[in-house]
Amino acid sequence: MSAATWVPGAAGSAYDVDHLPWGVFTHGDDTARVGVRIGDHVLDLAPVAAADMRPEAALFEAATLNPLMGQGRTVHAELRRWITDLLTVAEERSDVEPHLLAIDEVAMQMPVEVGDYVDFYASEHHASAVGTIFRPDQEPLLPNWKHLPVGYHGRAGTVVPSGTGIVRPMGQRKNPSDAAPVFGPSGRLDIEAELGFLAGTPSGLGERIAVGDFADHCFGVVGLNDWSARDIQGWEYVPLGPFLGKSFATSISTWVTPLAALDAAWVDLPGQDPAPLPYLAVDGPAGLDIDIEVVLNGHVVSRPPYRTMYWSPAQMLAHMSVNGASVRTGDLWASGTVSGPVREERGSFLELSWGWREPFSVGGEERVALEDGDEVVLRYTAPATGGGRLAIGEVTGTVLPARP
Amino acid sequence: MSAATWVPGAAGSAYDVDHLPWGVFTHGDDTARVGVRIGDHVLDLAPVAAADMRPEAALFEAATLNPLMGQGRTVHAELRRWITDLLTVAEERSDVEPHLLAIDEVAMQMPVEVGDYVDFYASEHHASAVGTIFRPDQEPLLPNWKHLPVGYHGRAGTVVPSGTGIVRPMGQRKNPSDAAPVFGPSGRLDIEAELGFLAGTPSGLGERIAVGDFADHCFGVVGLNDWSARDIQGWEYVPLGPFLGKSFATSISTWVTPLAALDAAWVDLPGQDPAPLPYLAVDGPAGLDIDIEVVLNGHVVSRPPYRTMYWSPAQMLAHMSVNGASVRTGDLWASGTVSGPVREERGSFLELSWGWREPFSVGGEERVALEDGDEVVLRYTAPATGGGRLAIGEVTGTVLPARP
Repeated sequence: MSAATWVPGAAGSAYDVDHLPWGVFTHGDDTARVGVRIGDHVLDLAPVAAADMRPEAALFEAATLNPLMGQGRTVHAELRRWITDLLTVAEERSDVEPHLLAIDEVAMQMPVEVGDYVDFYASEHHASAVGTIFRPDQEPLLPNWKHLPVGYHGRAGTVVPSGTGIVRPMGQRKNPSDAAPVFGPSGRLDIEAELGFLAGTPSGLGERIAVGDFADHCFGVVGLNDWSARDIQGWEYVPLGPFLGKSFATSISTWVTPLAALDAAWVDLPGQDPAPLPYLAVDGPAGLDIDIEVVLNGHVVSRPPYRTMYWSPAQMLAHMSVNGASVRTGDLWASGTVSGPVREERGSFLELSWGWREPFSVGGEERVALEDGDEVVLRYTAPATGGGRLAIGEVTGTVLPARP
Repeated sequence: MSAATWVPGAAGSAYDVDHLPWGVFTHGDDTARVGVRIGDHVLDLAPVAAADMRPEAALFEAATLNPLMGQGRTVHAELRRWITDLLTVAEERSDVEPHLLAIDEVAMQMPVEVGDYVDFYASEHHASAVGTIFRPDQEPLLPNWKHLPVGYHGRAGTVVPSGTGIVRPMGQRKNPSDAAPVFGPSGRLDIEAELGFLAGTPSGLGERIAVGDFADHCFGVVGLNDWSARDIQGWEYVPLGPFLGKSFATSISTWVTPLAALDAAWVDLPGQDPAPLPYLAVDGPAGLDIDIEVVLNGHVVSRPPYRTMYWSPAQMLAHMSVNGASVRTGDLWASGTVSGPVREERGSFLELSWGWREPFSVGGEERVALEDGDEVVLRYTAPATGGGRLAIGEVTGTVLPARP
């Protein structure tokens, strides 16, 4: 464990010196730049790096993390050592402390320019629940599901930072009993509690990223809410998959937890049977022991456990690139809805209400889907390398009425 | 019609002054910059604009068309008038001619930084053929098909310029008779002859683009080949749609035909029954009279007629944004495979070989799918405003062996 930090209130918090998530912030009228979070402060890295004559200073003056993310794992590790020293060595305090900004004095920004966004479907409990709800008389999992991490491309241009209001989407829907589709605001607005992974080091066209090279290419982790309009999705999705039912907004946390901060969070996958093809074979702990809380209007409605996921993030990346598709710095891939085996661990309202048939109580109100004005907060914690738990950036969003 | 151009050989060609497609080129060791094509020459716009003291000069020094594309329709119209004058007014010749570069002395580059890439499925003949081939005992079109332009997001990071070699992708596939999936090079590599549309003026999150505002937002048109590994696609695509079967490469032409050059190409759609919902209603000619040729190893194997498409590009854009999804400058949406009603008009090998069962002859060789070394060229022509036909940028690609 590192030495303790001198930053007041940070030691033992969810943002201790063993965490150091990256973000992009503005302070007053200043232009956006890169910082790391320590306790309830943001360290403004650009002036500290410039004073230290560090070659990376320009990376911190950028309005996105992308230039930093593309530097590769060795540089990231060196920067982590440097920042750890800044925040733990007593002699650094007088130079560094003037560049610590209180978290409530900065405005967090979209941290990344997202290249491509891929959403997987990696929870067996979620995929089985959805299959059972929609196809009750068939096998819940489709034949391919245990052979490959099923996924699809989402809309990168509508990935928005935590805090962005979510306008209820308009669209077509058709109930099986309707003669023709109707147009109007979605009546089945839902969440999907997910974890997102960001690509740092890119790969070239025609290359493949091996499962074992995951840590060389994954820069870090974000919380992610894949807002879903189930009625729009249900009508549109055959045969080419979800489109407008998802593309109106995907929220990510403004803080990016570096992969190195999750060293203590790795656990074995629950088990894969049948064994996947060799390009998907994992060796050692490939799952993440991350606890999620789904909070609706201040009430915890679910606690999805990430450790129950069937497919690992390394397998997702290997699969995504096995056909030679290049991966760019800033590409985002997400886990799909995280759901555990029991009701109180389900990561979507579709599952919590079992196909809208079983309303659940939220502080005395009943819900099957999101209502206008509802506020959703996703919270994520993981074991920290220094003991205790760190908090991966939370994801919030409030539902705004449809625009007629 | 404009006055005739003074550029030798250009009048009456497929790149006459009524066309003026945009592209990005390099010349020798110069950095990439923007040009327009006239006959067999590229006009190097940056120095001409600088000499004319035009405020747009910096747009032409960019390595992509994106800064230009984002300027809006009024600026694009003014630039078109200016360039037309440069190339038709005899007094301009002495100043302009030094900046005309022979087409074989420049290297064309990827013209656009693609934001999001959406692929539609807008040909009734194609969708019906695919439905009949894969589900012979059911209705060929799924229930939603005539109510909305079915589409999905593809991988923007693997949109490549014409001429890029296409490495045969590796991946999982499983025949219904196989006990388990196998891994290896795709054995069913295919093309999809499509037309692509590029967004110029963006729209904000929560906004919707009306069908009638298409021309305000569409900058221009490219040829597009949506390379497809049918065996990979067939195994992976349920329930979330095509993924690795498509994401290894999508080729676009390096020349972008401005929408204004297609003024003479608009024709009525073949007819939509049932009438689409009001947000998809079209008024007036919404189809494009573009002829396509699919050329395999020098032999024309198909002539798909774009005028037979069911859904219009304006309807695709309106649908894509009806849920409030923002559209960015550089976003690309494609038509899906263009297929006419008869065999010699089919835009994919899947259809030309009717599910691999009917090999077709290519200069004495038989084909059902692409072989290593095969060269595919897609050619596109449309009626020009000045009479005759213009050539939308062609799309070429040669199949390279899989990398083991």
